[in-house]
Amino acid sequence: MDNWLKKRASLTPKRMALSYHEQNWTFAELQQAVLETCTHLVGQKVQTAKRVAVLGNNTPQLYFTILALQQLGIEMVLINKNLALPEIEYQLHDANVDLLIYEDEFQSKLQPLKSMTLISLNDLHDSISADASSFIKDEFNLDQVTSIMYTSGTTGNPKGVMQTFRNHWSSAIGADLNLPVTAKDTWICAVPLFHISGFSIMMRSLIYGMNVRLYEHFNPELINQDLLNGKGTIISVVPYMLKKLLSLKDSDYSEKFSYMLLGGGAIDRKTLEICKDSNINIIQSYGMTETASQVVALNLADAIRKLGSVGKPLFPVSLKIKGATKPNQIGEILLKADNITPGYLNHSAPITNNGWFATGDLGYLDADGFLYLKSRLSELIISGGENIYPLEIENVINQFPNIIESAVVGKADSTWDAVPVAFIVTNSMINLKKLTAYLTSNLAKYKVPKKFIVVDKLPKTHNGKLQRKKLQSQI
Amino acid sequence: MDNWLKKRASLTPKRMALSYHEQNWTFAELQQAVLETCTHLVGQKVQTAKRVAVLGNNTPQLYFTILALQQLGIEMVLINKNLALPEIEYQLHDANVDLLIYEDEFQSKLQPLKSMTLISLNDLHDSISADASSFIKDEFNLDQVTSIMYTSGTTGNPKGVMQTFRNHWSSAIGADLNLPVTAKDTWICAVPLFHISGFSIMMRSLIYGMNVRLYEHFNPELINQDLLNGKGTIISVVPYMLKKLLSLKDSDYSEKFSYMLLGGGAIDRKTLEICKDSNINIIQSYGMTETASQVVALNLADAIRKLGSVGKPLFPVSLKIKGATKPNQIGEILLKADNITPGYLNHSAPITNNGWFATGDLGYLDADGFLYLKSRLSELIISGGENIYPLEIENVINQFPNIIESAVVGKADSTWDAVPVAFIVTNSMINLKKLTAYLTSNLAKYKVPKKFIVVDKLPKTHNGKLQRKKLQSQI
Repeated sequence: MDNWLKKRASLTPKRMALSYHEQNWTFAELQQAVLETCTHLVGQKVQTAKRVAVLGNNTPQLYFTILALQQLGIEMVLINKNLALPEIEYQLHDANVDLLIYEDEFQSKLQPLKSMTLISLNDLHDSISADASSFIKDEFNLDQVTSIMYTSGTTGNPKGVMQTFRNHWSSAIGADLNLPVTAKDTWICAVPLFHISGFSIMMRSLIYGMNVRLYEHFNPELINQDLLNGKGTIISVVPYMLKKLLSLKDSDYSEKFSYMLLGGGAIDRKTLEICKDSNINIIQSYGMTETASQVVALNLADAIRKLGSVGKPLFPVSLKIKGATKPNQIGEILLKADNITPGYLNHSAPITNNGWFATGDLGYLDADGFLYLKSRLSELIISGGENIYPLEIENVINQFPNIIESAVVGKADSTWDAVPVAFIVTNSMINLKKLTAYLTSNLAKYKVPKKFIVVDKLPKTHNGKLQRKKLQSQI
Repeated sequence: MDNWLKKRASLTPKRMALSYHEQNWTFAELQQAVLETCTHLVGQKVQTAKRVAVLGNNTPQLYFTILALQQLGIEMVLINKNLALPEIEYQLHDANVDLLIYEDEFQSKLQPLKSMTLISLNDLHDSISADASSFIKDEFNLDQVTSIMYTSGTTGNPKGVMQTFRNHWSSAIGADLNLPVTAKDTWICAVPLFHISGFSIMMRSLIYGMNVRLYEHFNPELINQDLLNGKGTIISVVPYMLKKLLSLKDSDYSEKFSYMLLGGGAIDRKTLEICKDSNINIIQSYGMTETASQVVALNLADAIRKLGSVGKPLFPVSLKIKGATKPNQIGEILLKADNITPGYLNHSAPITNNGWFATGDLGYLDADGFLYLKSRLSELIISGGENIYPLEIENVINQFPNIIESAVVGKADSTWDAVPVAFIVTNSMINLKKLTAYLTSNLAKYKVPKKFIVVDKLPKTHNGKLQRKKLQSQI
């Protein structure tokens, strides 16, 4: 397929592509900025790399750089800016990356990194440039990997999810066939570009020819003002963002406002009813890094009637429940679609023999074909839109002196939806302050348990399997 | 991918799918009608055929039958209802079809057909039925052929263009990324279902979840009324339909009216300006049977500025001019897209070695990337939206007694855009009445030349190639 940015700039050069505070770029201007970024990347010989890593806030510089790497056909590992250094090191090593493009804000955190070429995003435009034209791809090979995002999956080991151009294409098309999106829409991107939630907005922008309003980070006051003033018509949110925006809203949003696309967890009836009373159209969705964003969506028309459901599989997505022979039978959710990752970096593909992707999530379909999530096989904790995998945290805790074993579960939280809480079994007194300091230096802040409960032993089944539900009932 | 009709009926069962005069079907009702049609087809053991032919007007019965054949995974040859019996026989034989589903109106024409199983569409619902559920496809294999439409291409021999589900999918997606289409639109289908122009509306309806208003044939008075009353928001037209509708229009169409999608030939400035003055949004397009409908489109915003252009290639379509190294150089138009047919039945694929489809059309791209058609390599005559290939008509004329050779060219016509005119070289007097009768019994009426000009010899180049342009200048 033709290079998406080139094609979009050729089709609708004068249409708005990106806005950030008071700055605006048309698609022709966006292409210009991205091509200029390419000349600086080539000036630093970045095009010789097969794969690089990027780390930054949602700035235009990061936006241009991500698109520039696509122009040059270079795979990129999107580093979560909240990670601790050992986590970043693990991903860089696992992905065999020796070049990291970063924002200055993270310089001190990155300083200890060895044998790594570091390129500052902030200095890029003042750096040496070179003719990049011969390195710009005329076509995007849809089966080529463009982005890699790490997720811990069900095993607790972070794994790099490879996303091809076809994955992003299929995701954008599936969304387009369900969501009303027009050339007049502006999609607010306050979710991170390093997450599939933010990255997919960039890809939709190119494919639909739609404007993106970018925010350096989630700034609820500013976004509330922009929604009131009609500066954005669609916004992607996770539950804690939605609740925060609802708490700030004191009058109707602009007439131009269209809807919120909600990912990262189910919504409660109370919040849903507040949305309804406030004329906020909410489209709930279900998706994951491995599916390059949403694969199931629930439109407002069905939201109250089907409370608790995440909706129906999008048009190009096939979904079935493993082992289910009739409605309402619970089983693992299986998916088939061009959205699905070809596999994890350095691991076997996640596809089962029959071509179905096993999500690791349990759920059921009702008689009308609506999907209900029961629980995650993986016992995932979603905190402020971030996935927290208990096993990953437990692995770090267990390395602390005098800790025998541990179990991390999610505790409901009005601000973050959920926060991690750790149960620990020790063979002597533990200094909690030192434990917290140790965890903070090894884990992203959001992963550090907010509470530690010392117990004599962890509840387990006869065959030794941890009973997380029993722990959950104790908090 | 999931079976489209099943998926659509599952996603939006209550949305309007089809309307015809005063009758209406939701997607759930459409599915019901199609599944019932399947039971009658299975009752007549149609599911044992790999491929069948269908012949009819744009009736709900034909609509259901086409969709039913897709449900059963049976390839269908769509017979142009205007063809003469020898032409129909040629296609049935070439496609190795021995089962024809037809509308009663065509019974007398078909009577001489031998060794052919005929099933009347009109009697189908009273015919024996059988459980079809085990024959209904759960999934559509995108690489499977679903429809075959005959076109004479550049050689004059009618060839069956095979269209896969992927071709129709890609066509619908490319259109959706360019055209504003919403769940509230109703697409008027007064172009034949046996043409890609009509067939593609059916496929878009399933994929978009959009209503189709079907007309048995082009009924300008009724359509004009329906546009005035808001019964349709989008309509596919060819130039002669557009001009006819313009001649009838005496007040503004309903506020709900959105645009006309114009195919089958370029539009003149005068007509375009009438459209503009009449608030009729025209989207011009370029496409062919081999590309499963439009691949290039010109939106109204550019229509006056780029008069004479057919627009820019759609997002998923790659287009280049053979041999051109800069803008405005004329050459053959080459295409690459998932829209492109895998090939002609019983012939080699039309794809060149480099994966580009050679259209046989000459054109150029201007500096802004707009495509201009110069002429058809094939010297195609488009009359009332029907393709007429001179060589095909010449082959029939030349078999008439005392005719040495002939040449057919198009003559501009205010009603039909163009009509065929024949130049003939004879070795004795010809009875024109007998010639016309002979042609009428062997060719569709629209292919029969409207005028015959007897000449001593045909203008030719030194190496014997017919100079059609010289003939054209004589009429």
